[in-house]
Amino acid sequence: MTKPLNFQSIILKLQQFWADQGCLLWQPYYTQVGAGTMNPATYLRVLGPEPWRVGYVEPSIRPDDGRYGENPNRMQMHYQFQVILKPDPGNPQEIYLESLQALGVDPRRHDIRFVEDNWMQPALGAWGLGWEVWLDGQEITQFTYFQQAGGLPLDPVSVELTYGLERIAIALQRVNSFRDIQWSPTLTDGDVNLQAEQEHSKYYFETANVERLRQMYDLFEAEAKNSLDQGLVLPAHDYILKCSHTFNVLDTRGAVGVTERQALFGRMRELSRRVAEAYVAQRQQLEFPWLETTEAESNEMVLSVPASVIIPAATSPAPFLLEIGTEELPAADLDSALEQLKEKVPALLDGLRLEHGDVQVFGTPRRLVVQVVDLAVRQRDLEQLIKGPPADRAFGPDGMPSKAAEGFARSKGVAVEELQERELDSGRYAVAIVRQDGRPTSAVLSEALPGLVAGLHFEKSMRWNSSNVAFSRPVRWLLALYGESVVPFAYAGLQSANSTYGLRSYQPASFEVSSPQAYFESLKEQGILLDPVERRSEIAAQIRTLAAQADGEIADDPDLLGEVTNLVEAPFALLGSFDASHLKLPREVLVSVMKKHQRYFPVEKDGKLLPYFIAVRNGDGDGLDLVREGNEHVIRARFTDAAYFVRQDIKRPLDAYLPKLDLLTFQLKLGSMLDKTRRIVELVDDLAAQVSMKADELSAARRAAELCKADLATQMVVEMTSLQGTMGRYYALNSDETEPVALAIFEHYLPRFAGDVSPRTLPGLVVGLADRLDTLAGLFAAGLAPTGNKDPYAQRRAALGLVQNLIAWSLDFDLRRGLEAASSHLPIPQPPQNQAAVLEFITERLRNLLLDQGARYDVVDAVLSAQGHNPALSAQAVEQLTGWVGRPDWDQILPTYSRCVRITREFENRFPLSADNFAEPAEVELYKALTTAEAAPRAPGSVDDFLQAFLPMMPAINHFFDEVLVMADDERLRQNRLGLLQRIAGLAEGVADMSKLEGF
Amino acid sequence: MTKPLNFQSIILKLQQFWADQGCLLWQPYYTQVGAGTMNPATYLRVLGPEPWRVGYVEPSIRPDDGRYGENPNRMQMHYQFQVILKPDPGNPQEIYLESLQALGVDPRRHDIRFVEDNWMQPALGAWGLGWEVWLDGQEITQFTYFQQAGGLPLDPVSVELTYGLERIAIALQRVNSFRDIQWSPTLTDGDVNLQAEQEHSKYYFETANVERLRQMYDLFEAEAKNSLDQGLVLPAHDYILKCSHTFNVLDTRGAVGVTERQALFGRMRELSRRVAEAYVAQRQQLEFPWLETTEAESNEMVLSVPASVIIPAATSPAPFLLEIGTEELPAADLDSALEQLKEKVPALLDGLRLEHGDVQVFGTPRRLVVQVVDLAVRQRDLEQLIKGPPADRAFGPDGMPSKAAEGFARSKGVAVEELQERELDSGRYAVAIVRQDGRPTSAVLSEALPGLVAGLHFEKSMRWNSSNVAFSRPVRWLLALYGESVVPFAYAGLQSANSTYGLRSYQPASFEVSSPQAYFESLKEQGILLDPVERRSEIAAQIRTLAAQADGEIADDPDLLGEVTNLVEAPFALLGSFDASHLKLPREVLVSVMKKHQRYFPVEKDGKLLPYFIAVRNGDGDGLDLVREGNEHVIRARFTDAAYFVRQDIKRPLDAYLPKLDLLTFQLKLGSMLDKTRRIVELVDDLAAQVSMKADELSAARRAAELCKADLATQMVVEMTSLQGTMGRYYALNSDETEPVALAIFEHYLPRFAGDVSPRTLPGLVVGLADRLDTLAGLFAAGLAPTGNKDPYAQRRAALGLVQNLIAWSLDFDLRRGLEAASSHLPIPQPPQNQAAVLEFITERLRNLLLDQGARYDVVDAVLSAQGHNPALSAQAVEQLTGWVGRPDWDQILPTYSRCVRITREFENRFPLSADNFAEPAEVELYKALTTAEAAPRAPGSVDDFLQAFLPMMPAINHFFDEVLVMADDERLRQNRLGLLQRIAGLAEGVADMSKLEGF
Repeated sequence: MTKPLNFQSIILKLQQFWADQGCLLWQPYYTQVGAGTMNPATYLRVLGPEPWRVGYVEPSIRPDDGRYGENPNRMQMHYQFQVILKPDPGNPQEIYLESLQALGVDPRRHDIRFVEDNWMQPALGAWGLGWEVWLDGQEITQFTYFQQAGGLPLDPVSVELTYGLERIAIALQRVNSFRDIQWSPTLTDGDVNLQAEQEHSKYYFETANVERLRQMYDLFEAEAKNSLDQGLVLPAHDYILKCSHTFNVLDTRGAVGVTERQALFGRMRELSRRVAEAYVAQRQQLEFPWLETTEAESNEMVLSVPASVIIPAATSPAPFLLEIGTEELPAADLDSALEQLKEKVPALLDGLRLEHGDVQVFGTPRRLVVQVVDLAVRQRDLEQLIKGPPADRAFGPDGMPSKAAEGFARSKGVAVEELQERELDSGRYAVAIVRQDGRPTSAVLSEALPGLVAGLHFEKSMRWNSSNVAFSRPVRWLLALYGESVVPFAYAGLQSANSTYGLRSYQPASFEVSSPQAYFESLKEQGILLDPVERRSEIAAQIRTLAAQADGEIADDPDLLGEVTNLVEAPFALLGSFDASHLKLPREVLVSVMKKHQRYFPVEKDGKLLPYFIAVRNGDGDGLDLVREGNEHVIRARFTDAAYFVRQDIKRPLDAYLPKLDLLTFQLKLGSMLDKTRRIVELVDDLAAQVSMKADELSAARRAAELCKADLATQMVVEMTSLQGTMGRYYALNSDETEPVALAIFEHYLPRFAGDVSPRTLPGLVVGLADRLDTLAGLFAAGLAPTGNKDPYAQRRAALGLVQNLIAWSLDFDLRRGLEAASSHLPIPQPPQNQAAVLEFITERLRNLLLDQGARYDVVDAVLSAQGHNPALSAQAVEQLTGWVGRPDWDQILPTYSRCVRITREFENRFPLSADNFAEPAEVELYKALTTAEAAPRAPGSVDDFLQAFLPMMPAINHFFDEVLVMADDERLRQNRLGLLQRIAGLAEGVADMSKLEGF
Repeated sequence: MTKPLNFQSIILKLQQFWADQGCLLWQPYYTQVGAGTMNPATYLRVLGPEPWRVGYVEPSIRPDDGRYGENPNRMQMHYQFQVILKPDPGNPQEIYLESLQALGVDPRRHDIRFVEDNWMQPALGAWGLGWEVWLDGQEITQFTYFQQAGGLPLDPVSVELTYGLERIAIALQRVNSFRDIQWSPTLTDGDVNLQAEQEHSKYYFETANVERLRQMYDLFEAEAKNSLDQGLVLPAHDYILKCSHTFNVLDTRGAVGVTERQALFGRMRELSRRVAEAYVAQRQQLEFPWLETTEAESNEMVLSVPASVIIPAATSPAPFLLEIGTEELPAADLDSALEQLKEKVPALLDGLRLEHGDVQVFGTPRRLVVQVVDLAVRQRDLEQLIKGPPADRAFGPDGMPSKAAEGFARSKGVAVEELQERELDSGRYAVAIVRQDGRPTSAVLSEALPGLVAGLHFEKSMRWNSSNVAFSRPVRWLLALYGESVVPFAYAGLQSANSTYGLRSYQPASFEVSSPQAYFESLKEQGILLDPVERRSEIAAQIRTLAAQADGEIADDPDLLGEVTNLVEAPFALLGSFDASHLKLPREVLVSVMKKHQRYFPVEKDGKLLPYFIAVRNGDGDGLDLVREGNEHVIRARFTDAAYFVRQDIKRPLDAYLPKLDLLTFQLKLGSMLDKTRRIVELVDDLAAQVSMKADELSAARRAAELCKADLATQMVVEMTSLQGTMGRYYALNSDETEPVALAIFEHYLPRFAGDVSPRTLPGLVVGLADRLDTLAGLFAAGLAPTGNKDPYAQRRAALGLVQNLIAWSLDFDLRRGLEAASSHLPIPQPPQNQAAVLEFITERLRNLLLDQGARYDVVDAVLSAQGHNPALSAQAVEQLTGWVGRPDWDQILPTYSRCVRITREFENRFPLSADNFAEPAEVELYKALTTAEAAPRAPGSVDDFLQAFLPMMPAINHFFDEVLVMADDERLRQNRLGLLQRIAGLAEGVADMSKLEGF
C-alpha cells in the first residue's frame, strides 16, 4: 500500500483535480466565516445566470464546535475544501467520486453513501437540497444543490461540494484524532493547531466579553447598512459575515435566547437579501459578461424524441419496465414516490386504454422501478358519440345539413353525411360517431411517460438543470423497455434508453440490458434488492443475527428500520463496538446519537444497552475492516463529544447554572431566561390557587420551576437542544434533587411534539402551564403575536400543549385568571385587549383540536362561546353536547329552548322578575319549573346538567307560549314575562351559546 | 516560448516548490491582515528556538493602496506568497532564484536585483534587514532577515520571503495591469477582483464611518487585553490584527493625526510584545517540542581551521587577495566598508609586521575586495626589551640573580642568565631581551583575518546564522589567496577558500581561481567592475550617451550616481520612456518617483523634463527589451498612481480640504489638525505684534496660515508625506491663491531636514514660527515633552527649525512672548513651569546649534543665560562675545567687570544709589562714568554695545577700587557704594551673564 497523503498534499491534490475540471482556484476569505459558502466566491457567484466553477480551501470557524482540542474531529476551526459547479455538469456525483479516488479512496473497499441533508443558512437566506457524503459512516463532504441564496431563487442551480478535510485525512491516514493527522512530512495537525483549539475554545466559551461583542455586532451591522446604502455590495457582505461570526461567539457564550436569535437572524437575512439583489443588479448592469466568455453549454435541454426512433411492432403482450434513475432519494421521498407510482401507473394505463397484468413498483435510493406484466400491444379502440347542434338547427326541413352541421362535422373530422340524429336526455341532436383506433403501446407510452414522471410530487423538491423540472433529487437516467424495445421519451434533459447503473462502486458504472428480465437479473447479481419489503426483511434478519453474535438483541424500531431500508440498495450489516465506558452516559444521549445521527441500531440486552451498534452499509464484505473502523471512529468521536459535555456539565450542580440563564435573552423586552424562570416560580404559586396540590407536590413544583430552564445553560443541551428536560432531569438527580422535582423538570416540556404524552405528575403539569402562560402572555405583551403563517416562537405549539394538558388532566382551569396572573408578573404592561387576544389565540387552538377530533362546528362554537376559557370543561361540554344533538328528540328540545331565547334576544337589559306580576297560571307554572331547574345541582360547564335541568321545563314552556301573550300591552306584564324567559335563557350561561347550534 | 503560467498555476507552482524545500504549506489567515507576516504562522513561529519552514498565500489588505481598480498594480488587496525559513539555510537567495526559474523567469534575460530595504512593522514591534527584489525594476518580492518580533530578539534569525504575486504575474504574462492577468484558463484577475477593488476603495476612502471604526478599535483592543490577561495568546493576536486593520481604515479615511498614530502604534506594539512573550513562555513550558522532531541542523557553526591545511612556504613577496562575499550590501554600507578597509588593512599589516606594497580596496554590492601587492613572506623579527625588577632587587651584591629575577626570567621565557642590567629613565633595572622570530605570513593572516572582518561595523547590522556574528548583510563566502595558496581562516560559519561567485545569472555560479590575478581576470570577463571609481565613471559615461540619444541631458546628481554605482556590479544602462502626458505632473513628483523610488536618472533638456528615464541594470544586453518593458511598466504604474492622486485632489480647491482636517487628530488633547490650523491663524495675528510685516505680507501670512495644512488631507500627500508643502503650493496656485500665499504654504515647513534652507519670505517664516510654537507649547501642555532619546513627535526638529529660522532672519524675537501667545490659544491649560520648560527645551537646541558652530561653551552659557529666549540676538551676541574674549586686553576687561560683580553678588536686594552719599571723588568719578555708559545708545542684547560702553569706565573702576573701601563701616556709605557697583554689574543684564565666562 502506498503511503497515504498528508494533509497539505490532500489540498494540493484537490486543487489540481478541480483545476483540471475547469475550476478557478480561489483563496480562503479574509474574515472569519463558518463555512466556505459565505465566501463571496460562493455566496455571490451562485447568483445570476453566469457560469462559474471554483475551488478553494476555507478555514471554517465555528465557535460552538470548540472542544479545547479534546475531541477527535470537532474543532472550533476546521478546514473545508469548497467547490462550486454552476451550472450542474450533469454528473457531479461521479466527478466527486473521482476526486476521492484521486485522494486514494478505493470505492470498492469503502462504504460511500449519500445521506439526505437539506442545508440551510438562515442568516444568508440560503438553502439547498443534497446530502452528507459518508465515508464509512463519517460525514466527509456536504453535497448540495443550491436552490436559493439571499432569498433569491437560483437559475441555474449550483452544485456545492464541501469537503471536510480533517475527516478525510483521518480516514485516509487511519488515525484517531485530528491531532494525529500528518500535516506535512514532519509535523502533525496537532503540532500546528492544538494550541489554537485550546485557546480559542476557552475564549469562545469562557472569556469573550458579551457586552463588547454585542456592541461589535451593532457596529458591524450599522456599517453593513451604511455600505448597502452606498451601493457597496462587498463591504456590506464583509460586515454581515462579521455580524455572523460575532453572533456565533455570543451564542457560544450562551448569551442568545431563542427569541433574540430569531430577531438577529431576521436582521442578517434582510441584509443578505439586499446584498444579493444588489449583486445581481450590478452584474446585470455589466450585461452578465461571463455569459459570453465561456463556450455555450452543450446540454441544450429541449430534447425531443428523435423521429428516427423506430417503434418495432409488437405482436403479443409483453412486460413493460420503467426505471427512473436518480441521485440518492431521501428515505421519506422514496416511500412517497413508490406510493404515488402504485396509484398513478394503473390509473395511467387504464386511462390510456392499455390492457395489462400486474403492476409492480419497486425502488431503492437510486431508482424508482415500475414493472407491468403482460402489457397489451395496442390501445383498445374507442368509439365516441359526440353531441352536436340541436337537430332542428342542424338539418333543414329537407333533411339537408345546415352550415352549423357542416362546421360541427368538420371540427370532429367526420363527413357531414355521417352525422346522425339522436334523442338525448335534453332533446334531439345531431351527433357524430367518432372512432379512434387504438395506437401502438410504445407510441402511447412515449407521450404519456413524461407526464407520469412530472406528476410525482415531493414535500421538498429541487431544480438542478436548465430543464428546470423539479424532483426530489436529480433524475440522471431513464430506462424504458417494452419487451426488448426502448420506449423513447424525454424528460429533464434526458433521453430514455435501455441502459442502467449498478452500484456506484462497481464497474462498468453503466451497462445495457436487453429486456426487463435481464434488468432484474443484472441488478440482483450486484446484490441490489429492488423490493423494499425484501430489503427490509433482509436487513432485519442480518441485524438480528449480528446482535445475537454480540449476545444482544435489537429493540423493535420500525421507523429506523424503514429509514435504513431506504438508505441502501444492497444492504450489508456490520457489527461495531465502542468502549463500554461510554455506557455511563444517559441512555437517551447514546440512543439519540446512534439512531438520529448515525442510523445505527443500538444493541441491548434486557433493556440495557450493550457497547455495540449495527450499521448497514451498501455493497458487500470488501474492505469490511476499514468500514468498521471508520464507523467505530465516528461513534467514538460522537460519544466522546457527549461525554465531554456531560463531564463539563456535572462539574457543578444544576442550580449553579441559573446565573448563566441571565445571559440568555428570552426576548429583549421580556428579559433573560432567568427573568422568565423567576416569573414561572411566581406563577406556580398563583396557580396553586386554581389547582389543588398536596404540600409536597407544591414544593416539588416550586423547586422544579426554579430549575426547569437551568439545563439550557449546560453544554449538552446547548449542543443537542432536543435533550432539554431530559438532561435537566438527569442533572437534577445528579445534583441530589428529589425524584419528583427531576421528573417535573422533564415533564414541563410535555407534550414536545404532536402525538407526545402529557405530564403524568401534577408538578410537571403545573410548571408547564406556568411556562406556557408566561410565554404567551409575554410575547403578546411584547407585540409579538403570531401573524399569518409566521410563528417563529412556536406559540401555536405552546398554546396547543397548554390545551392538551388541561384536557388530558380534565383540569377545571380558567385561562383568564391564569393569563391575568401571568400578565401581572411581566416587566411590561399588558393592555386588556391584548389579554383577550391571547385568550382568543389559545381558544383557537382548542377549537382546532376539537374539530380535529371530529366534533361538529356548531357544537364547538356553542361551547367555546360560553366557556372557551376553560379547555378541559369545554372539551367535556362538547362531548356531552355532541351526545345531545344526536338525540332523536333534539328537534323538540332545541326549538323549545330557542323560543325563550329568540323573543328576548333583542333586549339588552335584564328585566326584573316578580311573582306579583304574574297574570296567568301558565306563568306561575313556568316560574315554578324554572326555580326547580335553577335549584338543580350542576357541575360547572356541564351540558348534561344544564339540559337535564331544562328537560323537565319543556311542557311548562310550551304551555306558557300557548297561553300567554308575552308582548302584552301592559308594560309591567310584558317586562315580567320577558324577565321570566330571560331567566330560562340564562340557564345555558357558562355552558353553551345554544344560538350557535344548527336548527336554533 | 511556452505559455506563461496563469495566476493560479503560479500559486500551485510556488506551493509545490516550497513544499519540496521542506516547507509546511499553510493557509491565509482568517482576518484582514496587511501582510503575511501578521499570520501567526510567521509572527509567532519566528519566535523562540524551534526550527520552522512554512509557505502560504496571503491576501493582503492595505486600505490606503486602494485605487478603485484604476492603478495597474496598486490595489487595496493583493496576494502575497509568504515563505519562512528558520533557521537560515545558508543559501536562501539561491533557493529563491530557483523558485523564480520554476515560475519561468530566465535570470539571464532579466534584471534581478536585491535592493536594500529595511523592513519594520511598528505595530508588531518587528523589524528586519533585507531587500526588495526587483525584476526589471519592479519590486516582486520582499526578502528579509527577521531580527526582532514583538520586541524580542530572534534567535535563530528567520528568512522571510514575500512574493508579490500580481507583480510576478504581470511580468511573466507581460500584461499591463492586474486587470489583465490571466487568473485561470478562462478568467482574468479583473474578472474576479475588479469589483472588489472599486467597492472597497470607495468604502475605505469615502464611506467608512470614522466614529464607528474608533469604537471598534477600542472594543478590539479591550478584547485583546482581556485575552492576554487570561493567557490566551492567539485570541489576543487576532484582536491586535483587527486593531491594526481598523487603524489602517481610519488612516485611509484621513482620520489619524501624527500624534494619534504614535499613540496607537505604541498601544499595539505593547500588546504585541505581550503576545510574543506569552507565546515564547508557552513553547518553553512545552519544552520546545520541535527542537527534537526535526533532525539536528547540520550546519554546526563552530568551524575552525582544519589542522590538515598545509601552509606552503613562499619564497618571495606575493600578492594577497581577500574577498568577503556577501549578499547585496546597501549602498551606504558598501561605502562605509570600503572606507574602513582602507584604514584597517594597512594598520593591520603594519601591526603584524608584514611588509607590503600598495593596498587596494574595491567592492561591489556582493563583495568587498582587498588586494595587497608584494606582501612579504614572513613577519619582521621582533626584539623587545622588557623591564623587570629594579637591579638592586634582581641581583645580589654578588651579581647573582635573586628569586625575583628568576621569576621574571621564567615569566618571559628567557634564561635567568640572559637578563641584563640597564639604566632606564627611572633607575637601573633588570631587563629581558625577548626575541620573536617573524612567522610565515599565511599563518599570521589566518589568525588575524577573522578579526579584520569582525571589526567592520555598520550603522545597522544583522545576524543571520548560529555563529551570531553581525554584518551589514550575510557573508556567504570568503576567498583568501596569498599568491596561489589559500589563507585558511573561518568566520561566520564559513571556511575561506579559493572560489568565488560571479554574476548571479551566470553559470557556473561558483568557480575556483588560481591566483589574485586570475580572480581579477575572471570577474572582468563577466563585466564586473570591481573598482567603484571605475564603475561610477562608466555609468556616468553610459547615461550621458543614452541621454544624448534622447536629445537630452542628465542633471548632475552625485548622490544618485553614487547610489547607483553601489547597486550594480556590471553596470549596463538602458533608456526607457514614458508617456509625455505624465509630464503634466508637478516636477517634484516625477523626479521624486524616478530618483527615490526607482533610482532612475531623469532626462531633461533646458531644465525641463523629457519623457525618458535611464535605468542601470546589472549584466549585459541579454533580454534588454524585456528589461526595458518591465521598467517602463513600473514607471507607468507609479506615474499613473501619482496622476490619479493629483487628478482626484484638484477636483476641489485647496480650501475645500479644510473640513477633512477635522478628521485628522493632531493629538487627542489638542484636537484635530483643523483646530491646530485655527490656532496658527490666531497666532500669526499675535506674532504681527513682534514681527514687522507690510499689510500685504500680513494678509498673505494669514491666508497661508489657513491653508498651510490643507494638503495633508489630499491623497497625494497622504501617499507621499514628503511632498507636504510642495503639493500645498501647487494646489494653492491651482486654486487661484496668490503666489505669496502659495509660497508661504511651502515655506512654512522649511527647514525640512538638516542642511535645508530657511524661508525666503516673511509670510513663510511667520507661519512656520506659529506652527512650531503651537506644536511645542501644545505637546508640553499635553504632558508630551520628549524624554530621554524618545522624541516621537520630532519636537527637537521643530525647535531647531524655529531657532535656525530666527537666526537666519536675524529676527529680534522673544520666545517667551511667542510661547505665551501660543499657550493662550490652547484648549488645555499651560502651567507657568511648563512654559519655562518649553523655553528651556528650545534654548537647549540653540545651545547645541551654537556649540556645533564652534562657539565656546562659556561664551554660549553666558549669552544664553541672559537672553536665550531670543535666539537671533543670542547668536549675534555669541559672535560678538567670541570676538571680545579673543581680544588681547580681555584679561583686563573681564577682571575689571568681575570685581564689580563679585563683591555685590552675595546681596540679593538692590541698594539705593544717591549722589548725596558719595564720600570720595573716586566715587563721583565712577558715578559719572556710569551715567555716561548708561546713556550710550545700545541695541538690544548687543555685547558690542555693552562692552563698548563699559570700556571707557575701566579707569574709573580701577581708580574706585584703589581709593575706596567699599565695605565701609558706615552703612550708608557702604550701601551706596554697593548700589553703585550693582548698577555697573547691571550693564550686562539682558546681554550676558559674564560670571559664566572663564577667568571671571
